[in-house]
Amino acid sequence: VPDVKEILQGSQIAGARAIRLIDDNDPKAFSLLKQLYPHSGNAFIIGITGSPGVGKSTLIDALIFEFRKRDFKIAVIAVDPTSPFSGGAILGDRLRMQRHGADEKVFIRSMASRGQKGGLSRATKDAAIVLSAMGYEIIIIETVGAGQAEFDIAAVAHSIGIVTIPGTGDGIQAVKAGILEIGDIFIVNKSDRTDAEAAVHELKMMLSMRNSKGQESHLSRPWTARVLKTIAQNGTGVKELFDTFLAHFDFMKQNGRLELKKKHLERLYFKSLLKDLALEKIELFVQESMAFKETLDQIESGTIDPITAAENVTNDLKITCNLKAIRNLKVRDN
Amino acid sequence: VPDVKEILQGSQIAGARAIRLIDDNDPKAFSLLKQLYPHSGNAFIIGITGSPGVGKSTLIDALIFEFRKRDFKIAVIAVDPTSPFSGGAILGDRLRMQRHGADEKVFIRSMASRGQKGGLSRATKDAAIVLSAMGYEIIIIETVGAGQAEFDIAAVAHSIGIVTIPGTGDGIQAVKAGILEIGDIFIVNKSDRTDAEAAVHELKMMLSMRNSKGQESHLSRPWTARVLKTIAQNGTGVKELFDTFLAHFDFMKQNGRLELKKKHLERLYFKSLLKDLALEKIELFVQESMAFKETLDQIESGTIDPITAAENVTNDLKITCNLKAIRNLKVRDN
Repeated sequence: VPDVKEILQGSQIAGARAIRLIDDNDPKAFSLLKQLYPHSGNAFIIGITGSPGVGKSTLIDALIFEFRKRDFKIAVIAVDPTSPFSGGAILGDRLRMQRHGADEKVFIRSMASRGQKGGLSRATKDAAIVLSAMGYEIIIIETVGAGQAEFDIAAVAHSIGIVTIPGTGDGIQAVKAGILEIGDIFIVNKSDRTDAEAAVHELKMMLSMRNSKGQESHLSRPWTARVLKTIAQNGTGVKELFDTFLAHFDFMKQNGRLELKKKHLERLYFKSLLKDLALEKIELFVQESMAFKETLDQIESGTIDPITAAENVTNDLKITCNLKAIRNLKVRDN
Repeated sequence: VPDVKEILQGSQIAGARAIRLIDDNDPKAFSLLKQLYPHSGNAFIIGITGSPGVGKSTLIDALIFEFRKRDFKIAVIAVDPTSPFSGGAILGDRLRMQRHGADEKVFIRSMASRGQKGGLSRATKDAAIVLSAMGYEIIIIETVGAGQAEFDIAAVAHSIGIVTIPGTGDGIQAVKAGILEIGDIFIVNKSDRTDAEAAVHELKMMLSMRNSKGQESHLSRPWTARVLKTIAQNGTGVKELFDTFLAHFDFMKQNGRLELKKKHLERLYFKSLLKDLALEKIELFVQESMAFKETLDQIESGTIDPITAAENVTNDLKITCNLKAIRNLKVRDN
């Protein structure tokens, strides 16, 4: 287990080991996170998501340079739920980003997110706590648009960039999938391709419908989502993208929006932790329960079917909670 | 809610509606499954998995023709956890398979598997119950190799085919990921590419290591995994693949292996159902619990951090189960 003090001092070796523990679902990560939590919370967390092949890694690579020019300490977590089979290509992406390796104010790690408890959002939130405690001011979380991942990232990030490319009809797909609702900045990458203008236009139209539908957040005067064009390969538009993320950061800092957002994400984190811990407890209970063993025997002998059996056991399950004492702890040092 | 009788009579419209309910996580699916379960269990379930782009859909398309030549009633469930953004391309795959549409003994559905309770294995198992109750003898479940999916499919299928293509180093990746352990038939598709022989050789070598390590199943005289070459696009090797699946089916039917396997999968299904149902119960409890509300307030006011809070609530959570009566039901009609 890595040393808490070393992590707080920003040791990349200690930080990498902590993230590895999280990625491995190691139970030792829990007490570590408990100790790091009070020292986390100052980072601005950016989520970057989009389909495979839209150029997310190249874009993040270019963004890192912009953040470094302004001397931000920046960390990137690349979460990739795609196959171990395609590990080769992904490694290539990672390697491309590794050219920041000599810069000690840049820290890049990838996570496998294989069978994570609580899914992607729990694992990335845990990792963000480590990175924030290490002193990184900006944390970028890169996820592959893969069904659930876009929504998971919304439970962690303060600002969400959604990357698309021209000619894919992503706009319409996004509306269908409800993706449009979660994006703060929409990026049409590879915008030297034909149909780039059409893609921008389509997204803007969709967004204007979203805005006019009055889907405002609970924060007054909501952010109007932006649509930007980039060519990550040669850096076109990356400075503007960087500026827009900073503008969103500034917007969030006004009128306590960021604090409200953080509170909201903390509640989500609590719920997801509680779910995970309760599930562990249930699994333990189930393993030791006589009722469960009897039922397994009955399934074995064919006298009951698994659906009825699960229903019976659950019906007779009693859950109670008498909170003995809330141990009040100091939460934040900042 | 679709009519049980119509599903049992094999109505594709009723079956499609049942699978839609499952895919939507509709609670109405549960009672439907309870009624269908006693009529399921006769199908042989094949899992086909592999990275995106290896040609799984084309291969399955070709396999369907082989199964139909021998007059098997066959159903396909394509589960795709990839982005809604790439929905276009996937739809194309599905459409390619739809040329069997006129054949009423072929039934193809895709499932989104977005945020499924209990994950992929629960949803596909549920769908397989519907398809089996409809009278399909062969059920193919196609999943994209995406981290967890390969393992989920092992909780549902009786026979697993893993599709790779030459030149990807999939063999080594597979060993690392533990994929090698679950495959019954390994398929090197697009085998007209260079390096096809090398890919076959690599897989065979890896498999011989697996076999010599004595990783036998609990069934005596284990199946020796096969490695086959196919070119799905022009049908090369598909007949051999079909024969090999049938050979594996025959092998499984010997000495009660298939029955043992089914019992094992039933126990897994029970456990996954129990986990889902218990979790629902806990979520309900948590929503109504005073302890939970108090804790949320404390998180809100910053007097406790989410990690400690979740730990406290869980520590004081009590789970008990007094099985009042096991209602013994008739399980199978076959």
